[in-house]
Amino acid sequence: MNIPKIDLPRVVIIGAGFAGLKLARQIDTSSYQVVLIDKNNYHTFQPLLYQVASAGLEPDSIAYPIRKILARKKNTYFRMTEVKEIDQKGKKVVTNIGEIAYDKLVIASGATNNFFNNESISDNSMPMKSLTEALDLRSKILENFEQALNTMDLVEREKLMNFVIVGAGPTGVELAGALAELRNKILPKDFPDLDLRRMRIHLIEAAPRVLAAMDEASSVKAQKYLSKLGVHIWTDTRVEEYHNGLVRTNGENFLSDTLIWAAGVKGQIPMGIDASKIGRGNRIVVNTYGQMEGEEDIYVLGDVALMKTEAFPDGLPMMGSVAMQQGSYLAKAFSRLAKGKNVRPFEYNDKGTMATVGRNLAVVEMGRFKFQGTFAWMVWMFVHLMLLVGFRNRVVVFVNWTWNYMKYNNGLRLIVRPFRRDQKKKEIQREERNRA
Amino acid sequence: MNIPKIDLPRVVIIGAGFAGLKLARQIDTSSYQVVLIDKNNYHTFQPLLYQVASAGLEPDSIAYPIRKILARKKNTYFRMTEVKEIDQKGKKVVTNIGEIAYDKLVIASGATNNFFNNESISDNSMPMKSLTEALDLRSKILENFEQALNTMDLVEREKLMNFVIVGAGPTGVELAGALAELRNKILPKDFPDLDLRRMRIHLIEAAPRVLAAMDEASSVKAQKYLSKLGVHIWTDTRVEEYHNGLVRTNGENFLSDTLIWAAGVKGQIPMGIDASKIGRGNRIVVNTYGQMEGEEDIYVLGDVALMKTEAFPDGLPMMGSVAMQQGSYLAKAFSRLAKGKNVRPFEYNDKGTMATVGRNLAVVEMGRFKFQGTFAWMVWMFVHLMLLVGFRNRVVVFVNWTWNYMKYNNGLRLIVRPFRRDQKKKEIQREERNRA
Repeated sequence: MNIPKIDLPRVVIIGAGFAGLKLARQIDTSSYQVVLIDKNNYHTFQPLLYQVASAGLEPDSIAYPIRKILARKKNTYFRMTEVKEIDQKGKKVVTNIGEIAYDKLVIASGATNNFFNNESISDNSMPMKSLTEALDLRSKILENFEQALNTMDLVEREKLMNFVIVGAGPTGVELAGALAELRNKILPKDFPDLDLRRMRIHLIEAAPRVLAAMDEASSVKAQKYLSKLGVHIWTDTRVEEYHNGLVRTNGENFLSDTLIWAAGVKGQIPMGIDASKIGRGNRIVVNTYGQMEGEEDIYVLGDVALMKTEAFPDGLPMMGSVAMQQGSYLAKAFSRLAKGKNVRPFEYNDKGTMATVGRNLAVVEMGRFKFQGTFAWMVWMFVHLMLLVGFRNRVVVFVNWTWNYMKYNNGLRLIVRPFRRDQKKKEIQREERNRA
Repeated sequence: MNIPKIDLPRVVIIGAGFAGLKLARQIDTSSYQVVLIDKNNYHTFQPLLYQVASAGLEPDSIAYPIRKILARKKNTYFRMTEVKEIDQKGKKVVTNIGEIAYDKLVIASGATNNFFNNESISDNSMPMKSLTEALDLRSKILENFEQALNTMDLVEREKLMNFVIVGAGPTGVELAGALAELRNKILPKDFPDLDLRRMRIHLIEAAPRVLAAMDEASSVKAQKYLSKLGVHIWTDTRVEEYHNGLVRTNGENFLSDTLIWAAGVKGQIPMGIDASKIGRGNRIVVNTYGQMEGEEDIYVLGDVALMKTEAFPDGLPMMGSVAMQQGSYLAKAFSRLAKGKNVRPFEYNDKGTMATVGRNLAVVEMGRFKFQGTFAWMVWMFVHLMLLVGFRNRVVVFVNWTWNYMKYNNGLRLIVRPFRRDQKKKEIQREERNRA
């Protein structure tokens, strides 16, 4: 590995998500040499992935090249590679492109889809955790309608025009709303010879209500908004099997060629971490300083870290705001360490949660303030715009949103790379081989 | 196939490129039913593909959904599918999704890469005729630099940082210029720990000068511009073989992991056309009405048509402007036919040619007017903006160009889908199987 050795302790950060990137941007590089590793050369703004999937935004407006973000940071090295293993004894990270020694290691590798070991779902469903997956989903949705035009078989057509979303957290709710707007306003213009009323959007949730992590009042409102847009909601429902276009649950069954999985995530832990350190949700247990138990030099941040606090005895939620705050915290902590000062434990400042269903339809909870409707929707947009990295991306997303608001029509409905299930399977296998 | 039969003659158009799309937009649909077929659901503005490849523009700004273009045309049906064969006797087109009967057939299937039967080139080079190919090329270019960082092997690094473009027509010249600007202005910021002066751009041309179809003066000027940007030009040079990163020519050899093929195109003819009707450049010979020899109801337009005129005894050039004029012409001709009026032969109105090398560097020939430099560059931009389909695309491209002009930095350098040569090979094989 081609990274110069200098007379500063080296911090290796795995993952350029919210936590890892925040740390890399804020860490004091006159006291540390920084090596940031990610398998992609860009940072993804995951909260808006669903708009890429539903043809509302292009990938370049919610992703940002990591090299550009770090261009002015001295002593900072980015490497695009996959981590094979962490060698704790040798204090090094083994990657596809060689070994990288560390003085301090920060694991911020995020979360991945959790299919709860259900193979029929993992093999056949469409996840939406990465830019590539979101683009595949977009292609699949558009291809379905092109195919529906060409079949006389009514069961086949029903499968193509039924969309089942599993999991009614913010991601599932937002995607369901976006698909409903596609159906109601956009697709009928594109497919005048197809009866779009036949398109069904089913939202399945195992809990008794949508947005179960939010207040009852927000749930009720979100549910009302979704119904208004024509989304069918099935609470207390668990998917048991998905084969040949048949979705079997503990209640109703559904015919659908497209099952979108938004029902669960788990920590994505690199190889080489002892199983005894892993807790609930496949996350690495850390103390309130972000350190892995018994390891002074290994820190874990964001979704892959299980940090228990008084307010969150099961661990802080897997959310962007936790990850960003932990990244900032660790940057400051490292500064104090370098100066020999003492470090105080991390404190989470809960900024609330929000979800949008469609135009003028959103629910927001910020501390004591809970509100819904148009103002909530504007708050949602403002917060998401401000969180995007880069002035250009903010402008592009803002212009797109304004345009779509006025015209109901944005022209991003290109199937640039057709989705192929067999190809997807091969990619998953290859990824698993790489990890193993 | 799910297309209603109505009491109007049916025109089936194969291909939604410049010719097919122009015809579909302008044909009088109170006299004809129209079925447009394309393997993609979008129209590609090919002249700007090289800017997608060089990370200057996103795919959505130079492509446009066909359904959106045709949304308000009555009696018009679009189907996304591949043509398997033309059954002239049965007057129908055989496709992946069934058969489509025609009264009049318009073949506007365009051109494809011509590797002149050199397998080592077709297997290993990167073409740039479609949006997918342009995106693959972009990924490859960016991946090369990520890899170059990780190798200590100097030969390996040279291969990764040498780019060989074959063919110095407008496409090759424009891409060479764009790559040179990437090297000079943009990549050094992204890769501070890589010596970008080692990046070499070689432009190889079999003719004695670049832009051989233009005037000598334009060639000289373009060559001067390219040299100024640091592009190495090799005229009178033919590539003979390309294996394991070694480009063998009749003169100099080059080490390069990336050979970009812009040296030749040929007509892309659907199966079922008699070999006797095929002429130079694998194009179908047509009369000056656009009709295939001896076939009153089969028309051929654009790159795939070989139409000889007095001024162009070898056939009209394979250019967008010819295709668009032929599309317009045929729409008018069909109107006159429907009204029982006589039809006059097609006349090509030569609007000239142009190519841009970089900012303020372009060459333009419009009839007697030949000019170069800043004004030519502005004319080039204006003409290309006006030819783009859709107001949104014009705005997006204009904003991108302005931004890039001021900032030398646009942030589109995402490797969203890594390029894999093995995968590309499989796709080519599959396509060929489909065609066979």
